[in-house]
Amino acid sequence: MTRATEDDLIARYFAPLAAEGGLGLRDDAARLSPVPGHDLVLTVDAIVEGVHFLPGDPPGSIARKALGVNVSDLAAKGAEPVGFLLTLALPEHWTEAWLATFAAGLGEAARDFGCPLLGGDTVRANGALTLSITALGQVPAGRMVPRTTARDGDVLCVTGTIGDATLGLMLRSGPDWAGSLSAEHSTFLADRYVNPQPRIALARSVREHARAAMDVSDGLAGDLAKMMRAGGVSAIVEARSVPLAPAASAALRLDPSLIDRILTGGDDYEILCAVPADRVAQFRAEAQEAGIPFTAIGRVVAGSDGPIFRVDGTEKRYETGSFSHF
Amino acid sequence: MTRATEDDLIARYFAPLAAEGGLGLRDDAARLSPVPGHDLVLTVDAIVEGVHFLPGDPPGSIARKALGVNVSDLAAKGAEPVGFLLTLALPEHWTEAWLATFAAGLGEAARDFGCPLLGGDTVRANGALTLSITALGQVPAGRMVPRTTARDGDVLCVTGTIGDATLGLMLRSGPDWAGSLSAEHSTFLADRYVNPQPRIALARSVREHARAAMDVSDGLAGDLAKMMRAGGVSAIVEARSVPLAPAASAALRLDPSLIDRILTGGDDYEILCAVPADRVAQFRAEAQEAGIPFTAIGRVVAGSDGPIFRVDGTEKRYETGSFSHF
Repeated sequence: MTRATEDDLIARYFAPLAAEGGLGLRDDAARLSPVPGHDLVLTVDAIVEGVHFLPGDPPGSIARKALGVNVSDLAAKGAEPVGFLLTLALPEHWTEAWLATFAAGLGEAARDFGCPLLGGDTVRANGALTLSITALGQVPAGRMVPRTTARDGDVLCVTGTIGDATLGLMLRSGPDWAGSLSAEHSTFLADRYVNPQPRIALARSVREHARAAMDVSDGLAGDLAKMMRAGGVSAIVEARSVPLAPAASAALRLDPSLIDRILTGGDDYEILCAVPADRVAQFRAEAQEAGIPFTAIGRVVAGSDGPIFRVDGTEKRYETGSFSHF
Repeated sequence: MTRATEDDLIARYFAPLAAEGGLGLRDDAARLSPVPGHDLVLTVDAIVEGVHFLPGDPPGSIARKALGVNVSDLAAKGAEPVGFLLTLALPEHWTEAWLATFAAGLGEAARDFGCPLLGGDTVRANGALTLSITALGQVPAGRMVPRTTARDGDVLCVTGTIGDATLGLMLRSGPDWAGSLSAEHSTFLADRYVNPQPRIALARSVREHARAAMDVSDGLAGDLAKMMRAGGVSAIVEARSVPLAPAASAALRLDPSLIDRILTGGDDYEILCAVPADRVAQFRAEAQEAGIPFTAIGRVVAGSDGPIFRVDGTEKRYETGSFSHF
């Protein structure tokens, strides 16, 4: 059977996903007319089979995660999504059925996130499936929320719940506590690993109320350390304030040592921000209206040591700066 | 030996390359303030070890090629470079020495092309080294030159010379004619394969004079067919008018059958454009001033069949739509 050419594949599966500026993907480049008075926010994140997801994962989930992690970055900078470009490096054994399901999932995610396809490149991988997405967002000029500007006295807040995704990943290797967890809780945690929920609905609140923000992708402890170091400050976090989903709480009751994993594991894709004390109530109200949990977990303090986590009466500093991909 | 973390590597090798909007790569995203009255032009191209370059290729060349092929796309759309984002998927066996040389080459290319680093992501490859670059350019609003708008009667023109890169690639497998080629010619062809020269200096001329344009990356015949098909037209090309470098002419004298490879081989990274007849002289004058060869090779004609190449008195239609990566 003759395989389709790259152009055929693009026309069949990706052109239907294209934004107006994507020109039906029939050109070598996309065109974007920026909204006057706005800055663009640009982010790029790649995910690799066997590193960031597993070979058997459903193609639609892979697509959704690849786009979701990028849109999450935009939301944490206070930016609304504009569109994205995709690089898809397909391994030798790819099939058109796989690609069709992937494209369908990508299209669904693009609609859900309000972030249409602008362009892309499809190449043959020399190894495992690799995806890279460059996402573009916009903010009113000068309003991108930096990672670097947290200030002594700010309240540290997170959206959603922490640790679900890393527990979901753990479940795949069948830890002792997995057997005692309800099916409902297991499903929830597993889904949180494959299906990040970028907090786009809070982008505006982030830029109106947060002084500094980032998305939690490499673990709360590591990312907080990164944000504090970038601002020349430190932090104190109350572990009991860190918001846990019922499923994560249940797992933690089964194995209290999981608290370290919850605080350091990756793939939360929640927003961590430093909020001036007098803006917290308004931010919380807006999050509530959007139906997204919003929780104060500690505060920014002066200092250059790593953040302190108060866990069950003891103070912990987590070793690692952040999860490293190397 | 402990390996550096991703953050260390970024700070050491990539932060020095960052544009102002890249914020020293210390944030999760880059910021870009578009120039009022301009559109952005976006393109993405990936290259893979063992597919688009060879494992032993010098890291600086790989970097330059990865950026060059993207900047070439911008130039062909009439856009001036603004900046780029890099995804680098590093294989298990990477070394810091390799990375240092790669980053140095990337920085040099970024300066040469006037296209600074805005952001990136470094991940572990599960297989061969893979690079993806998203490049951004700008044009005055509404002035991006499409691929799709060639019109019956337009003159087909190309920049530079055609076929050098594909002959340079052939040289690596030691064809019969290679032995009779001078060292100087061999070096020239080999360099043209690894070292694309994006025609940025002509971006303005392209948008002022060309009706349709694209860069020739997958072979002149295939890319021309693509451009004509997109415009609902056809073309007649005089093979003897296709500009050849002295090295390619020498190779062609040694083996006249190379003409097919010259016309269909990839990696030229020259600009192919359809120019209204009354704009050709001015375009040529501007190219001459920029020191870039500019040659009329044929014309756009009505019709929906593939372009005809007149080669040595016979008319050829090349089979393949375009080089396919699959």
